[in-house]
Amino acid sequence: MVNVKELVSQMTLEEKAGLCSGADFWHTKAVERLGIPASMVSDGPHGLRKQDTEGDHLGINDSIKAVCFPAGCGTAASFNRKLLQDMGAALGQECQAEGVSVILGPAVNIKRSPLCGRNFEYYSEDPYLAGEMAGALIHGIQSQNVGTSIKHFLANNQEHRRMSSSSQIDERTLREIYLAAFEGAVKKEKPWTVMCSYNRINGTYAAENKTYLTDVLRGEWGFDGYVVSDWGAVNRRVEDLEAGLDLEMPASGGMNDRLIVKAVQDGRLKEEVLDTAVERILNIVYRYEEHRDNTAVFDRDADHEKARRTAEETIVLLKNDGVLPLDKTAKVAYIGKYARAPRYQGGGSSHINSHKVTSALEAAAGIPGITFAEGFRDDIDQTDEKLLAEAVEAARNADAAVIFAGLPDSFESEGFDRSHMRMPDCQNELVSAVAAAQPNTVVVLHNGSPVEMPWIGEVKGVLEAYLSGQAVGAAETDILFGNVNPSAKLPETFPRKLEDNPSYLYYLGEGDVVEYREGVFVGYRYYDKKKMDVLFPFGHGLSYTSFAYSNLKLSADSIRDTDTLTVTADITNTGSRAGKEAVQLYVSAPDSSVIRPEQELRAFDKVELQPGETKTVAFTLEKRAFAYWDTRIHDWYAETGNYEIRIGASSRDIRLTGAVHVSPSAAIPVHYTPDTIFGDLMSNPKAMEILKPMMSMPGLGGGSEDSSETASSAISGEMHAAMMRYMPLRGLVSFSGGQLSFEDIEKLVEKLNRLN
Amino acid sequence: MVNVKELVSQMTLEEKAGLCSGADFWHTKAVERLGIPASMVSDGPHGLRKQDTEGDHLGINDSIKAVCFPAGCGTAASFNRKLLQDMGAALGQECQAEGVSVILGPAVNIKRSPLCGRNFEYYSEDPYLAGEMAGALIHGIQSQNVGTSIKHFLANNQEHRRMSSSSQIDERTLREIYLAAFEGAVKKEKPWTVMCSYNRINGTYAAENKTYLTDVLRGEWGFDGYVVSDWGAVNRRVEDLEAGLDLEMPASGGMNDRLIVKAVQDGRLKEEVLDTAVERILNIVYRYEEHRDNTAVFDRDADHEKARRTAEETIVLLKNDGVLPLDKTAKVAYIGKYARAPRYQGGGSSHINSHKVTSALEAAAGIPGITFAEGFRDDIDQTDEKLLAEAVEAARNADAAVIFAGLPDSFESEGFDRSHMRMPDCQNELVSAVAAAQPNTVVVLHNGSPVEMPWIGEVKGVLEAYLSGQAVGAAETDILFGNVNPSAKLPETFPRKLEDNPSYLYYLGEGDVVEYREGVFVGYRYYDKKKMDVLFPFGHGLSYTSFAYSNLKLSADSIRDTDTLTVTADITNTGSRAGKEAVQLYVSAPDSSVIRPEQELRAFDKVELQPGETKTVAFTLEKRAFAYWDTRIHDWYAETGNYEIRIGASSRDIRLTGAVHVSPSAAIPVHYTPDTIFGDLMSNPKAMEILKPMMSMPGLGGGSEDSSETASSAISGEMHAAMMRYMPLRGLVSFSGGQLSFEDIEKLVEKLNRLN
Repeated sequence: MVNVKELVSQMTLEEKAGLCSGADFWHTKAVERLGIPASMVSDGPHGLRKQDTEGDHLGINDSIKAVCFPAGCGTAASFNRKLLQDMGAALGQECQAEGVSVILGPAVNIKRSPLCGRNFEYYSEDPYLAGEMAGALIHGIQSQNVGTSIKHFLANNQEHRRMSSSSQIDERTLREIYLAAFEGAVKKEKPWTVMCSYNRINGTYAAENKTYLTDVLRGEWGFDGYVVSDWGAVNRRVEDLEAGLDLEMPASGGMNDRLIVKAVQDGRLKEEVLDTAVERILNIVYRYEEHRDNTAVFDRDADHEKARRTAEETIVLLKNDGVLPLDKTAKVAYIGKYARAPRYQGGGSSHINSHKVTSALEAAAGIPGITFAEGFRDDIDQTDEKLLAEAVEAARNADAAVIFAGLPDSFESEGFDRSHMRMPDCQNELVSAVAAAQPNTVVVLHNGSPVEMPWIGEVKGVLEAYLSGQAVGAAETDILFGNVNPSAKLPETFPRKLEDNPSYLYYLGEGDVVEYREGVFVGYRYYDKKKMDVLFPFGHGLSYTSFAYSNLKLSADSIRDTDTLTVTADITNTGSRAGKEAVQLYVSAPDSSVIRPEQELRAFDKVELQPGETKTVAFTLEKRAFAYWDTRIHDWYAETGNYEIRIGASSRDIRLTGAVHVSPSAAIPVHYTPDTIFGDLMSNPKAMEILKPMMSMPGLGGGSEDSSETASSAISGEMHAAMMRYMPLRGLVSFSGGQLSFEDIEKLVEKLNRLN
Repeated sequence: MVNVKELVSQMTLEEKAGLCSGADFWHTKAVERLGIPASMVSDGPHGLRKQDTEGDHLGINDSIKAVCFPAGCGTAASFNRKLLQDMGAALGQECQAEGVSVILGPAVNIKRSPLCGRNFEYYSEDPYLAGEMAGALIHGIQSQNVGTSIKHFLANNQEHRRMSSSSQIDERTLREIYLAAFEGAVKKEKPWTVMCSYNRINGTYAAENKTYLTDVLRGEWGFDGYVVSDWGAVNRRVEDLEAGLDLEMPASGGMNDRLIVKAVQDGRLKEEVLDTAVERILNIVYRYEEHRDNTAVFDRDADHEKARRTAEETIVLLKNDGVLPLDKTAKVAYIGKYARAPRYQGGGSSHINSHKVTSALEAAAGIPGITFAEGFRDDIDQTDEKLLAEAVEAARNADAAVIFAGLPDSFESEGFDRSHMRMPDCQNELVSAVAAAQPNTVVVLHNGSPVEMPWIGEVKGVLEAYLSGQAVGAAETDILFGNVNPSAKLPETFPRKLEDNPSYLYYLGEGDVVEYREGVFVGYRYYDKKKMDVLFPFGHGLSYTSFAYSNLKLSADSIRDTDTLTVTADITNTGSRAGKEAVQLYVSAPDSSVIRPEQELRAFDKVELQPGETKTVAFTLEKRAFAYWDTRIHDWYAETGNYEIRIGASSRDIRLTGAVHVSPSAAIPVHYTPDTIFGDLMSNPKAMEILKPMMSMPGLGGGSEDSSETASSAISGEMHAAMMRYMPLRGLVSFSGGQLSFEDIEKLVEKLNRLN
């Protein structure tokens, strides 16, 4: 084992500064004098985007042939931690075989708006689900002694002006939503590295944001790897380094290294800060070097099969009016370009140079009744009348039609956001035309984020395939014909229209200011609270079998916030096919004194059941499942009160409910002032004892009337009670008719504060 | 004419301090030595609530018998400035007759949520309408040389914790919504006094908020009267005085006067500040005294008739499936307690001791076919089966049923907010039961703010009577039977359910913090932008005749923001009855670079037309009609662009549209920094000239690819363009491959800034 501290002590100032930026686009610097090797990182995370020739980053097809797994939008829909772990292990093997120390991902940013161009890489609108899925992938990759780089830290929820915009987010929302996705994965799975984002958070660039890069990430969450910049995110190198940004990628032609050297020489930067950064980088370089697996091979065909297994659990059956699964002896028209040339991944840094791609058409080669019509173009959004007519004709001549539709690359990519939530008009027109000709029409969608479905009432079935990787066609055909029973569920709400989205009014912001005014009300937290109708709710997904939920048990009726609660329920496969069910646990805090969502996902599990089989699922809930982030104590807090435990098949299909009373181990300290109102003191008997003598003064008695602009004939009992409840202590001065002075109130407040 | 300055110079310090608070609940102090009279103020503003015996504020029925006009919720629905002026003139006469110098109102707070307990006193969700209506009332009252006190300044939009809560509102929203209602009335009609509210604005109590009480109110708007505290709103007397709060009401037993004296003596308060406050108070005292009208009489019966005329224009016909007007020879069942004992005003400081009340039942005495059933109790929300059965029976035996329903006093009052938007369950049950028995059912609602109408599809007609004052029953019966043609329109949106309201998620706040997160998206500004279905839109109201809109003309195609635009349109009564139409003008700014509402009310007029008659309405629009509040220049700004002029019968019934191009007389100064992105420079040809040489550097060329985590096979043209557009100038350092230094960028930025 290399002694990294010892090694750092032998490095020159220039060598240390140099190590804090890349040698080229994909490598850290080597220091030959000391035997320090260069270390390669590669884009990901749903495949290996390893640059082919090290010096070349200008050519085309410049990454090696690799295997494209389903993107984050799809894998999150699996609700299956084990699936993500297995996928991660495969990616880790690939990295070992290819000499890659860190794969750049997963990306856990919250899907705040359907429009974010990079949504396809992201997991969910829910931070718990995103953190769990990311954690599982990290676990799998790192099980092979290869590092991950969870990204983009922090609050990078749009591509528009991503290098200059500031995400304006209140403390509680940051904690409960935008930090929480990272928190879960970082605390549980300790990614080797974290990638900071381009944007600012409340005015300060992520790259120079000490609060998050150091205080929260390392101080609170115990992160011990290195922080790397997103490529080009470094802003002011010395300040960034002090904030906790260790490695700049790619590089600045040595300019930033020289700035670091000069800052140390001038005494503006403590050398220990630099030493620490270098140490963190070398720790990871050697963590990889010392655990190289020279037996590892990149078996592309084997991994293709793994990608196929993954895809089978990432395709969500949204609607099925009895049309699916299709009969293998029926005449089925496959319609649409994406049946032949599927859209299975998004554009940008995660783009994989797939070694092969299985289309649905290819996968259906053995099925005798399949016909095909191209249906639409996706290079321009314009109906090709000939293709449309052929498609309608094919549909009419079949027993069923399956339309492989979705968003073209030009609609959805890293780098820019969508300008609307619609599919291309020509595709919508195609769906309606085909559905008019063929009653048994199914739509299979290829997209990374929700789309509007104006034709939803016209078709009998909808499969959301997301961007399911290079084996997508095989998985689709297996699900369509019932070889595979779909088991994915939506990791996000599909609203009816874009305007329904909670961020709609302020999304993209004004200039560089992006206000997250919806606060914690992201996704279902908003739709549920506003009692809105949605197209498909969070957690929704159908199966070819059916499941019954029963026998909810809670380990206690009442707990302290330091206790854990165990919740169990029985799930039974009541249908005739084997299947998997993603069981979801939501907690509701109906008695809360703060503004909270109607319910929040706090646990989930996926269970596989044979027909007739019953299994018990068990969930363990800790304080965090009941808590909100309290901005007075700057910590999680679980209020005293009754909480509802809801077990469901989706956020709007709750099957079992139970209740538990939770009490906090410490109360939030109260500080009274002359502005404290009587209503806030009424629940404190000791305080009321002190106030009692004053309550009988003229003007404060219940029977008489003295107040403000009122006349007793105009004052209801309700109004009188409200006036008392809302009166501040300082009001005693005027309402006591001069009997009490301000000094008396000050003394009273002191006395009340001594009660705490 | 008294020389007030001279008078102030003769007053002792104690006399001056004393004059800054009330002698009792309703009078300023007299200074006998100098002949300064006491001056009386009285609650209002939809009637005179003058205390009967000066020293007594404990008894019942303590205000004199007076005339209750329709409350603000209803008068705003008239969309008729002249009507409000006439009502104001009547009130002013009453004050002259009764020796009242200032009537405390009008109240122009924005109806942010349907739940605000005091909504019935407020005008609208729209600040322009609220300001115009308030201005008209002020004009009328002050035409009689009696003062008004526009209230509650500022941002007092809930009763919950009103003495301690802080309304957290961003600068632009304050300007465009919450200040704007006051601004319109203050600038145009110069109210004699302004009443500050109990609450805080962004942490600072209204009473001590110099920004609004002095800088904005006096400095920007030219207010020259005195500011009076809401009763009991004074917090820290010396600070309040410095902030611009002149008169404390009612009083603090002399305690605050002594604090003022001591502060002057200690040198903590400049005596000139006190002198100015005294001068302002005396200016108003003498403005009244020197214009007393000794001929004025309070003719209650005459004013009752004026209240009736007013009510006729404040009742909105929301729905009419051919059932109205009723046939005077038909058998009509009047159902519901409010037919016999109408709810026609709200509880609290505005409550009038009416000298008589005309119920609908009384008003219908001459109509032969009227029957009556009490229908429901309103002291508790519980169905009285006997009353219900009688009502259903009465409905069944009639040709039509009219249900006089609404909110009981206990649901809606000053002092506390509603907890939901429903009517009492027993009334909803009654409506459904009656409608099931009688197809020709009409509901007449008595309430100060929207209610949910679960039975809307079951009834043929709905009249929103708001709280229409003591002559309400006469106006209702006249409208029901067609003696009067309804012409009021909704001054607010009726959402389908409470959760639809834009403030819903954060209304009432957490503790004393109330966040106005919906920003400028209040009322229709929200429903329109979010494309939401509503129960009844802003500006909606039916008539017994019909109107055609035609011949839209704009005085110019293109204007500067210093010009005015005249818009004319012809309105024709195409029906067979005389009627009045409230014509609304909305402006839309589709090209805006800032986040703006879909459209905003910028003008309105009410026109009376005989059958077949056509009149031309003319509107004059100035800069403000196109402008938003720009937080960079802290001023109104009308961007360059095309604006749509929409003339409609409601916000969702636009009949005519036109377009005008507006250009600002001054551009907003631009300041470039190293964080400025290329996209923000692209529209500036001079800037692009400077940048041109750098654009050809490696890594920035259009053909090659260099950027961040990307590979060219993964990069669409759209993504490449976006990456360029969003790159900050500082990005040139790393993307120039070391050819440019930070110093070069600084110099470049300086050069760009010199272009301005």
